[in-house]
Amino acid sequence: MVITMSGNATAAQIDHVIERIRECGFREHVSRGTEKTVIGVVGTNSNRNEIEALRAAPGVESVTPITQSYKLVSKQMKPERTTVRIGDVCFGGPEVVVIAGPCSVESRDQLLSTARAVHEAGATMLRGGAYKPRTSPYDFQGLGIDALKFLSEARAETGLPIVTEVMSTEDVDVVAEHADMLQVGARNMQNFSLLRRLANSSRPILLKRGPSASIKEWLLAAEYLLSGGNPDVVLCERGIKTFETETRNTLDLSAVALVRELSHLPVIADPSHGTGRRRLIVLMSRAALAAGADGLIIEVHPCPERALSDGPQSLDFTQFSEMMAGLAQPSRRIANAMSLVF
Amino acid sequence: MVITMSGNATAAQIDHVIERIRECGFREHVSRGTEKTVIGVVGTNSNRNEIEALRAAPGVESVTPITQSYKLVSKQMKPERTTVRIGDVCFGGPEVVVIAGPCSVESRDQLLSTARAVHEAGATMLRGGAYKPRTSPYDFQGLGIDALKFLSEARAETGLPIVTEVMSTEDVDVVAEHADMLQVGARNMQNFSLLRRLANSSRPILLKRGPSASIKEWLLAAEYLLSGGNPDVVLCERGIKTFETETRNTLDLSAVALVRELSHLPVIADPSHGTGRRRLIVLMSRAALAAGADGLIIEVHPCPERALSDGPQSLDFTQFSEMMAGLAQPSRRIANAMSLVF
Amino acid sequence: MVITMSGNATAAQIDHVIERIRECGFREHVSRGTEKTVIGVVGTNSNRNEIEALRAAPGVESVTPITQSYKLVSKQMKPERTTVRIGDVCFGGPEVVVIAGPCSVESRDQLLSTARAVHEAGATMLRGGAYKPRTSPYDFQGLGIDALKFLSEARAETGLPIVTEVMSTEDVDVVAEHADMLQVGARNMQNFSLLRRLANSSRPILLKRGPSASIKEWLLAAEYLLSGGNPDVVLCERGIKTFETETRNTLDLSAVALVRELSHLPVIADPSHGTGRRRLIVLMSRAALAAGADGLIIEVHPCPERALSDGPQSLDFTQFSEMMAGLAQPSRRIANAMSLVF
Amino acid sequence: MVITMSGNATAAQIDHVIERIRECGFREHVSRGTEKTVIGVVGTNSNRNEIEALRAAPGVESVTPITQSYKLVSKQMKPERTTVRIGDVCFGGPEVVVIAGPCSVESRDQLLSTARAVHEAGATMLRGGAYKPRTSPYDFQGLGIDALKFLSEARAETGLPIVTEVMSTEDVDVVAEHADMLQVGARNMQNFSLLRRLANSSRPILLKRGPSASIKEWLLAAEYLLSGGNPDVVLCERGIKTFETETRNTLDLSAVALVRELSHLPVIADPSHGTGRRRLIVLMSRAALAAGADGLIIEVHPCPERALSDGPQSLDFTQFSEMMAGLAQPSRRIANAMSLVF
Repeated sequence: MVITMSGNATAAQIDHVIERIRECGFREHVSRGTEKTVIGVVGTNSNRNEIEALRAAPGVESVTPITQSYKLVSKQMKPERTTVRIGDVCFGGPEVVVIAGPCSVESRDQLLSTARAVHEAGATMLRGGAYKPRTSPYDFQGLGIDALKFLSEARAETGLPIVTEVMSTEDVDVVAEHADMLQVGARNMQNFSLLRRLANSSRPILLKRGPSASIKEWLLAAEYLLSGGNPDVVLCERGIKTFETETRNTLDLSAVALVRELSHLPVIADPSHGTGRRRLIVLMSRAALAAGADGLIIEVHPCPERALSDGPQSLDFTQFSEMMAGLAQPSRRIANAMSLVF
Repeated sequence: MVITMSGNATAAQIDHVIERIRECGFREHVSRGTEKTVIGVVGTNSNRNEIEALRAAPGVESVTPITQSYKLVSKQMKPERTTVRIGDVCFGGPEVVVIAGPCSVESRDQLLSTARAVHEAGATMLRGGAYKPRTSPYDFQGLGIDALKFLSEARAETGLPIVTEVMSTEDVDVVAEHADMLQVGARNMQNFSLLRRLANSSRPILLKRGPSASIKEWLLAAEYLLSGGNPDVVLCERGIKTFETETRNTLDLSAVALVRELSHLPVIADPSHGTGRRRLIVLMSRAALAAGADGLIIEVHPCPERALSDGPQSLDFTQFSEMMAGLAQPSRRIANAMSLVF
Repeated sequence: MVITMSGNATAAQIDHVIERIRECGFREHVSRGTEKTVIGVVGTNSNRNEIEALRAAPGVESVTPITQSYKLVSKQMKPERTTVRIGDVCFGGPEVVVIAGPCSVESRDQLLSTARAVHEAGATMLRGGAYKPRTSPYDFQGLGIDALKFLSEARAETGLPIVTEVMSTEDVDVVAEHADMLQVGARNMQNFSLLRRLANSSRPILLKRGPSASIKEWLLAAEYLLSGGNPDVVLCERGIKTFETETRNTLDLSAVALVRELSHLPVIADPSHGTGRRRLIVLMSRAALAAGADGLIIEVHPCPERALSDGPQSLDFTQFSEMMAGLAQPSRRIANAMSLVF
Repeated sequence: MVITMSGNATAAQIDHVIERIRECGFREHVSRGTEKTVIGVVGTNSNRNEIEALRAAPGVESVTPITQSYKLVSKQMKPERTTVRIGDVCFGGPEVVVIAGPCSVESRDQLLSTARAVHEAGATMLRGGAYKPRTSPYDFQGLGIDALKFLSEARAETGLPIVTEVMSTEDVDVVAEHADMLQVGARNMQNFSLLRRLANSSRPILLKRGPSASIKEWLLAAEYLLSGGNPDVVLCERGIKTFETETRNTLDLSAVALVRELSHLPVIADPSHGTGRRRLIVLMSRAALAAGADGLIIEVHPCPERALSDGPQSLDFTQFSEMMAGLAQPSRRIANAMSLVF
């Protein structure tokens, strides 16, 4: 860490900071500039918190960390990319993973027909919400355990592995019993109790980025999972909140590209929530793959205009099938071409 | 709701929408303009979701709600302001409530000395984190149940009621046993499992606004509590995420003023998290009260530079005491003067 | 427009609004719901402002436009895509346009060597700042007219057309004398005096999106140019301001995709400013093309670490050349594949 | 400045950076940590740009400035607060300045009646737009020079000094002839050509914060004025763009409080644009003064529902008069009380 003293810091204030650095088990490296004194803090990182608290000491202008606070998720720790496997599906490998299905499981028929359609169109995994986080208490809250059973049935029929959201520590066991992968929703990205519980699960986790989470906060949420014992984490960019209201969120594809620089974890994109507009999903799916995404998660519904949630951003079966046909080949070509540069 | 058809919508598409409106138990009111057809949806509100899904129907450009989706928290439902009482403390009444205490309970001594100091300075309630939501898994996570016992002891000695955060449904009972008021932290504002559990608690709730929550989303989170059975909710503005980095968050005092227009619930402000800078807390506390806040929540620590969390935004005992001395009188005068207008 | 009266609006207030609608030359269409009265305003659009002012009338809750305020830039007005031609370069046609060059023209040698390098690598147009908008008055402000001369010389040698920023109405003539295309910088997107002056120029305009401009505001800025007489406008997405600080801006590729839905104007992307990080430029260039961008604008410098501006986001010659080699072929394949869907 | 080398930087890369630091006339101060090497750059500040460019050098992770890039506007340069005087009006002194008037000058009658009303109610300065920056080219663009004449006439009658916006370098002379203070609008905050021209004006400048300008960018815009020769600058916070849409902008009162810490310049607030809602203006005016604002600028119109611009955020004469009555006394009490703390 680097501590910058304010221009009018006294010698006593500087000495006090140095004394405190030593108390915490670090060494100081003082650089007296023409305007300000800068103190490098040299040593290991375990008392980092105590040094950061020096922001509050008299005469201190700022305390700047120079090392990242995440470790296990970083490329420094593990330069080769992680793959997360669920049966035949592999996140982070050469193949693009396409997860598709309805926002909410609304009925057995709705789910099974969608599962068949997305399977036929080439999706490799099935999504469907059983427990729904809804902004309003008056909106449809999901079918719960019935939905989980329908999902199991859909897997039995189509062979597609299942991912579904778990909203509460209390539901982890029952959801893990039916699902192959557990999703942490955007609003729960910093639900640390839930993260700690999922760190003990044997299921892989799909960790959505929070709508106002910085990339650093997102990676630290993943760090909760890895440091707690679960190495099988897939990140999912799903759009952030900005001033723009024409799209439901702003899909931050730079974050996809950057996460691949910073971390070894697989990362996918959710253009359905990222844009909130059905007509943008095909182009943004292609853009996400071009930016380096390892996969996509797409909302598909038999009749979007009757969907109990997220209709306007859901594709119908025909649209999804056409999208998959278009994606199929060039995505590999993009990948090849990408290998030419950098 | 008002449905706007796109300029090139066909007669069949318009008919389809009308048919669907009737199926859902509403009546339509069609207004054919020079460029676009607009369809008013008249009737009661229970199938609102199904009408909103028509956004996905062919030829539909937009579906605009004209009634708010929250009910119980609104002033339409209850024009007079709600008061939430905890012993002698009353949120929403004529007196300003000042909650003060450390970000985290770090030790028995730290808490008791702070409790005594803020009590003496005039605070009317004590805060202190037992379970801490921390961005990094490597940061101090709180003392848990030990902290709750120290808080109980501090109440016994000073008479100050206690508010502390509850992070998980599993902790609700133990926290409610020790605390007088349960805080939902900003990151958990849309942890709906937690909200549903707290709706069944007999304790009043302090509901912080999420860092990227719109005012509407915040009020709907409160609606979860009221509609689930807990009427004793106090809102807390604590800053939102914006592009500005000089302050930790952007304290949105317009939200305080606006929430008083929209809702009957009491609302307080948290200038400590809202600014992240100790030197701004006094001015922003005054500004919050001038904007109509019913109270303040302020972080105070015996030695901020040694705090395990939030040191840079914590006041020491002297600073807090001076702040209270300054706030004491004019806040009533502001309130009187405010009554002259509007 | 649709006027929503508040729930407790009186009959007199409703009558007053209706009277005012008629005074402004429109007809009203009243829909009395169970909770609120909604008034559709039917007629032509020229007194739109006066109807919008009714937001301030007693009893009015909201006034919602149902038609877009831009006309000439919209696809409703002109469904086929516009092409903007500068010599052999064509924006909006089948070929991707790649503009490359230094952020600032720093010297004759720097510019000429860069022009040769980007020409050889396959760029089809040259960029280079002569008048630089700099956040600080102490930063390098550009070489002005000397830079314009070097740009002319570079065009003479390489045949690449020139685009450069014009910051002031007073400079329009001299810049137009040397440059083939005039850039409106992001900070000047709503400099309406400049837009009005450029509407009278015979040069095509490259209109960058402002860092906090909504898509609607961006299209309305283009509307200033078209309505003032200049049809040759190319839009450029260059990133918006958000809470994320890991990237310099957040490149909003959804905006590229959406602008192609809303407008017939060509649109390109600037991944250099959009990310601020050299290592993300290749991936984000591909992503921009996949999202539907008609071209790219890329900063290239002979020695980025000595650049007087934007070094960290500039490619050196080798990096640019490798990027172009990678882009060359698959971009056409993406375009072909895209045509399969929707 | 502090240069952080990446963890795997080579000795040659570190040497290269050091060599470059020396070439630029600075000295290096190398601190080799356990994970990374940090290089302090010691010396005067004139080649700052060249050091910042080292962000682009191989092995460099970040370059962090430790001194502010603004000088003349800072409190370090001038600890005592600046006052800007216009006749009897004094910004930055003990009295609160209240500027009031219509958004746009729409007619002689409208302006004169408003001038009389705000004068009588206690406003000390008159505002009124002659040249209007409008998002759409189809909206009312202002009366131009006729409006300037009406403003002069209003001053002659009421004695109130005039502030009005200047949008273009070409209009500076004519506006300065009629107005006592020249406003730089929010959209022009980084119109550097305009700032440079206004630096040569003898009129004081009211510099509005851009809707997406950081506090640092705002102060640097003021630095353009001071460094160019005009010391009479008053800052104006008018709300920033955020995700919240219930208010037109988010009035950032922390910025008011913080600017008083960082700069000696007077700062006022604009709750009309800051909120866009008439009903919030009184509370937010009080909050702004409590946060330390030296004054207010308020939109007032004889009949807001017929205003050609900004009706919904304009007060009518009665509302303004009531607001002033309420503000009159307690604001001094707040100021007194504030002096008790810090």
